[in-house]
Amino acid sequence: MSLEPFNLYPDFNIVRLSHVNFSVTDLARSRAFYSDTLGLQITDEDSEHIYFRAMEERGHHCMVLTKSDVAEVRSLSFKVFSEVDLDKAAEYFRALEHSVEWVDRPYQGRTFRTHDNAGIPLEFYFKMDRLASIHQKYALYHGVKPLRIDHFNCFSSDVDKSVSFYNKMGFRTTEYTEDEESGRLWAAWMHRKGGVHDMAFTCGRGPRLHHTAFWVPTPLNIIDLLDLMATTGYVANIERGPGRHGISNAFFLYVLDPDGHRIEIYCSDYQTVDPDNEPIRWNLKDPQRQTLWGAPAPRSWFEHGSLFSGVSVEEPVVTASPIIAP
Amino acid sequence: MSLEPFNLYPDFNIVRLSHVNFSVTDLARSRAFYSDTLGLQITDEDSEHIYFRAMEERGHHCMVLTKSDVAEVRSLSFKVFSEVDLDKAAEYFRALEHSVEWVDRPYQGRTFRTHDNAGIPLEFYFKMDRLASIHQKYALYHGVKPLRIDHFNCFSSDVDKSVSFYNKMGFRTTEYTEDEESGRLWAAWMHRKGGVHDMAFTCGRGPRLHHTAFWVPTPLNIIDLLDLMATTGYVANIERGPGRHGISNAFFLYVLDPDGHRIEIYCSDYQTVDPDNEPIRWNLKDPQRQTLWGAPAPRSWFEHGSLFSGVSVEEPVVTASPIIAP
Amino acid sequence: MSLEPFNLYPDFNIVRLSHVNFSVTDLARSRAFYSDTLGLQITDEDSEHIYFRAMEERGHHCMVLTKSDVAEVRSLSFKVFSEVDLDKAAEYFRALEHSVEWVDRPYQGRTFRTHDNAGIPLEFYFKMDRLASIHQKYALYHGVKPLRIDHFNCFSSDVDKSVSFYNKMGFRTTEYTEDEESGRLWAAWMHRKGGVHDMAFTCGRGPRLHHTAFWVPTPLNIIDLLDLMATTGYVANIERGPGRHGISNAFFLYVLDPDGHRIEIYCSDYQTVDPDNEPIRWNLKDPQRQTLWGAPAPRSWFEHGSLFSGVSVEEPVVTASPIIAP
Amino acid sequence: MSLEPFNLYPDFNIVRLSHVNFSVTDLARSRAFYSDTLGLQITDEDSEHIYFRAMEERGHHCMVLTKSDVAEVRSLSFKVFSEVDLDKAAEYFRALEHSVEWVDRPYQGRTFRTHDNAGIPLEFYFKMDRLASIHQKYALYHGVKPLRIDHFNCFSSDVDKSVSFYNKMGFRTTEYTEDEESGRLWAAWMHRKGGVHDMAFTCGRGPRLHHTAFWVPTPLNIIDLLDLMATTGYVANIERGPGRHGISNAFFLYVLDPDGHRIEIYCSDYQTVDPDNEPIRWNLKDPQRQTLWGAPAPRSWFEHGSLFSGVSVEEPVVTASPIIAP
Repeated sequence: MSLEPFNLYPDFNIVRLSHVNFSVTDLARSRAFYSDTLGLQITDEDSEHIYFRAMEERGHHCMVLTKSDVAEVRSLSFKVFSEVDLDKAAEYFRALEHSVEWVDRPYQGRTFRTHDNAGIPLEFYFKMDRLASIHQKYALYHGVKPLRIDHFNCFSSDVDKSVSFYNKMGFRTTEYTEDEESGRLWAAWMHRKGGVHDMAFTCGRGPRLHHTAFWVPTPLNIIDLLDLMATTGYVANIERGPGRHGISNAFFLYVLDPDGHRIEIYCSDYQTVDPDNEPIRWNLKDPQRQTLWGAPAPRSWFEHGSLFSGVSVEEPVVTASPIIAP
Repeated sequence: MSLEPFNLYPDFNIVRLSHVNFSVTDLARSRAFYSDTLGLQITDEDSEHIYFRAMEERGHHCMVLTKSDVAEVRSLSFKVFSEVDLDKAAEYFRALEHSVEWVDRPYQGRTFRTHDNAGIPLEFYFKMDRLASIHQKYALYHGVKPLRIDHFNCFSSDVDKSVSFYNKMGFRTTEYTEDEESGRLWAAWMHRKGGVHDMAFTCGRGPRLHHTAFWVPTPLNIIDLLDLMATTGYVANIERGPGRHGISNAFFLYVLDPDGHRIEIYCSDYQTVDPDNEPIRWNLKDPQRQTLWGAPAPRSWFEHGSLFSGVSVEEPVVTASPIIAP
Repeated sequence: MSLEPFNLYPDFNIVRLSHVNFSVTDLARSRAFYSDTLGLQITDEDSEHIYFRAMEERGHHCMVLTKSDVAEVRSLSFKVFSEVDLDKAAEYFRALEHSVEWVDRPYQGRTFRTHDNAGIPLEFYFKMDRLASIHQKYALYHGVKPLRIDHFNCFSSDVDKSVSFYNKMGFRTTEYTEDEESGRLWAAWMHRKGGVHDMAFTCGRGPRLHHTAFWVPTPLNIIDLLDLMATTGYVANIERGPGRHGISNAFFLYVLDPDGHRIEIYCSDYQTVDPDNEPIRWNLKDPQRQTLWGAPAPRSWFEHGSLFSGVSVEEPVVTASPIIAP
Repeated sequence: MSLEPFNLYPDFNIVRLSHVNFSVTDLARSRAFYSDTLGLQITDEDSEHIYFRAMEERGHHCMVLTKSDVAEVRSLSFKVFSEVDLDKAAEYFRALEHSVEWVDRPYQGRTFRTHDNAGIPLEFYFKMDRLASIHQKYALYHGVKPLRIDHFNCFSSDVDKSVSFYNKMGFRTTEYTEDEESGRLWAAWMHRKGGVHDMAFTCGRGPRLHHTAFWVPTPLNIIDLLDLMATTGYVANIERGPGRHGISNAFFLYVLDPDGHRIEIYCSDYQTVDPDNEPIRWNLKDPQRQTLWGAPAPRSWFEHGSLFSGVSVEEPVVTASPIIAP
């Protein structure tokens, strides 16, 4: 099977992924993790919520934590180019007969909530409060010095279908893994903002959120975070890495927040703004696909993910297995 | 004077800056500089030309050297999104009564040559030969390990006019310097591809090319280049840096090629894909504007530039002076 | 059991570890590994031998490869302070009734060969040809940019005995691992030159050489080597890392040469010149001892080592097991 | 003139430079600089003093600040190997008819105060309170993450005489600058602990302290400090750098504390434990001596220094001038 072509002229213009909303069970514990350890900046908080931004972001938030009894993902949010795009997007989802609900979201302009083909709750907006820049307030930098939210990665029970759905919205595939036996997609990386991805899908029980990634300047920031977590009680929260992915060429680290939400810290992928950028194909049997340096990922990395609130999960259609650390 | 708003819906879609064509007086000497020292990859060469690409680029060239009796700049090239955009761009320039000449350029599809408001020779194309990726062929990396061409910076005798011209083509200003006394722009940084700039203008005798920049992953690559140049006969070609610009927040180094064409090596600017990204204003009197750490630039940096072939130069309309090293 | 005190005033002054002599089965293949990939500089070679030095060394060699039918370690060499120290050292070993043989070693002054308590073949010299410095010849740097040989690590069947033997020669223990159940040493790190170690011992079938380490400036050099090895046919030679040891605090990578001799690339340990520097004690059950970030080492790392020519191996006296990756 | 040989077998064993005692005029202001900005750790403080150590040091202090009306240097301190060495050292200075005064210094064992040939106040001790290690308490690291005190550099009015005096105490010269016209030394770098220097001398009005240096792991730590100082009110305290010295090969930054005491942040020099390490000779006329990359130092760097309490200053005997930035 060849990769389906993506839509160069989608009905509406998604600029980039914007923010994630996590349910967390202990707000203070999560605050310590995201603010004190990772180094995200708090832009607002009350007894039920915390809003964060990363160091070079001027939008009000890239992450919202909401206190809850269960740890879940409430929504993945995307920013569209203009109010016209927002209305076209709402129309687009309505035409697909996906529910479209206009919701109030603090610090954001008009926002609607819908879901993708698999049920992942998505929210779209075009305007968010813009804050004064802090990227040159170097006294604020600490932890891993996160610069910006980079991408989401989701488990999908049918990656072909997920890719097809996002293709139509103008997401462009940059790299993908094929299961040669079934001829089906096993994973795919798709972008809007000119990096390797805003959204990726990996074969597995889905839909679930595999991870949310933040971009940092150099591998040394990641090493600093490892040293800090290892000596402040978070050693068990280090799941995988550091390493370099074959796919995306990124230097990575995966850590788990206190509720088990997986965060990737990530640097050194590449620019993909050319519309004729050729997707790179990987074979599921190639171990360097997952780690260029050869080390396989732990089993948990292929199995654990966060549930989306109220969304049921299905078994994957592809039954091939990745290479897992013994 | 307030900054004129840029055009969010230009007539045609410029994806990014693409390549520069330099006339050089000694091809072997320039080859040694760009290939052996900087680390650009040669994609073709004959007795009159050398074509280069950087490590993560898949287009055939980001720089073309042409043997000549005089060192000049033949053109600055930009990639547009599609053939439709290319024809609309040609029509746009014709409507402005700028000459539009369709030219043959090896390894490129249909290409036309025109000029901007100040006479800078511009070329536009939509298609270039795509080469196999080399960003994971680590044995090829050397020199400063350049990943991609990043931007052009030009002297303009009237920055307000230059900015207005590029505004209309959809370039968005990210940062700018104002001369408070005259109320005029002294410099501006404008992007298409989602970084701080594809094109910048600085007040001076113009039009001339101030520099062409390449993006590298970390400041340590720049330190490696300094060590290499300093011990292989190029110490006099190091003009300014290393340092961090206040504007753009980038870590920089400026070096001169054997003909005096200025090259910037650059990392760590920030993402600007949001259409409502607010331009950052700087005062011409603020020394941290040019170097965050306080050191002023040498006089040569404000005065020396490369001529565009056949284009005459005018004195600047703003007469204020930047802060220059004593 | 408490750690036996080391001898602050040994009979002779060992300056530092100096070089290793490996038997290798394919000289060309080993040359490609050590010269082209790791980046050691060849200082002499013929059809039977290759001599290498690292970038900041001025002595003629830190590694000698000798062509052979079997891959073994011929000797570990140490530099003493003066000719007086050399003769005192020879006298010291004779008094212990260890064989002392004066040998001819190219590029070295007077040199004798003996062995330690466990049979490890040791050579001592005070004078080696000094070469012109190359640490500022930056065009020569490549591979991992190794700056100097740093230490040896050996399997010992009785670490208490090994430590006692080297204690008497003035090696000072900086860190050690104790098996709490038996009260015996499981591992120890001992220095002469003011870093964490010139010589270390780990419990196992011994004596065998566990690894030889080279010092590099930053973790990014190690990441560069990983990228290079992973994409030039050496991915299977990457054994463990990158990571940070709890012990020594060093950032590490372990790779295997084409014959299976293990090489560590190493940076960021600490200075230990104070004679009252307190040894740091670690518990064998503490997983952060081996990797601060928590990941256990692979089984091969605890089991595989290089034999010393003509030296028989014994089972370890301590039977406790370290934590091994599942 | 050739460099006078150093004494391989001095009467007493100096292990390393140990600490500096500065008089400062505003303790709170200095505390903010050294603790909050540079990142030294406070080990004790009262209304008159602050004691600091760096991250990998286990001795109680590497810097003592004493409140005073004038900003001066009270003493440079050195650690000797043992109490026997301490008494031999006292005897040595008495034999030279230098005053030897036994003084009480908190957290130190027996300590005496004397002076060198030029009058620089020196203190020697063998024992200091040892503190628990903090080099793996990564939550404490901030600022430039200083690991250890590295060296002193002093203006000397007669560098030949200063070198001769320290030669006799076993300091070994690693690099030196000669004024070819007069045949005299213009500068020299001398070590005890196995790096490029514990003590250096530069020609100038002396004796005065030119700077005290701290060692950090990588150039990126220095860039972090520049960013921090530039955006927290210390931009005027940045005097020179970042750059690489030809001499010592070190990557450097010079900053001034609130009283004008100069601090160097320094990394990547080389190991010098071999007693037959050849000193490297530099010509005063070689600009790469001061900065490998060619940029000359500012005039202040050659002229400004800290006075030693109660010590009068003389004009230099060599009248040649270094290369100074215009």
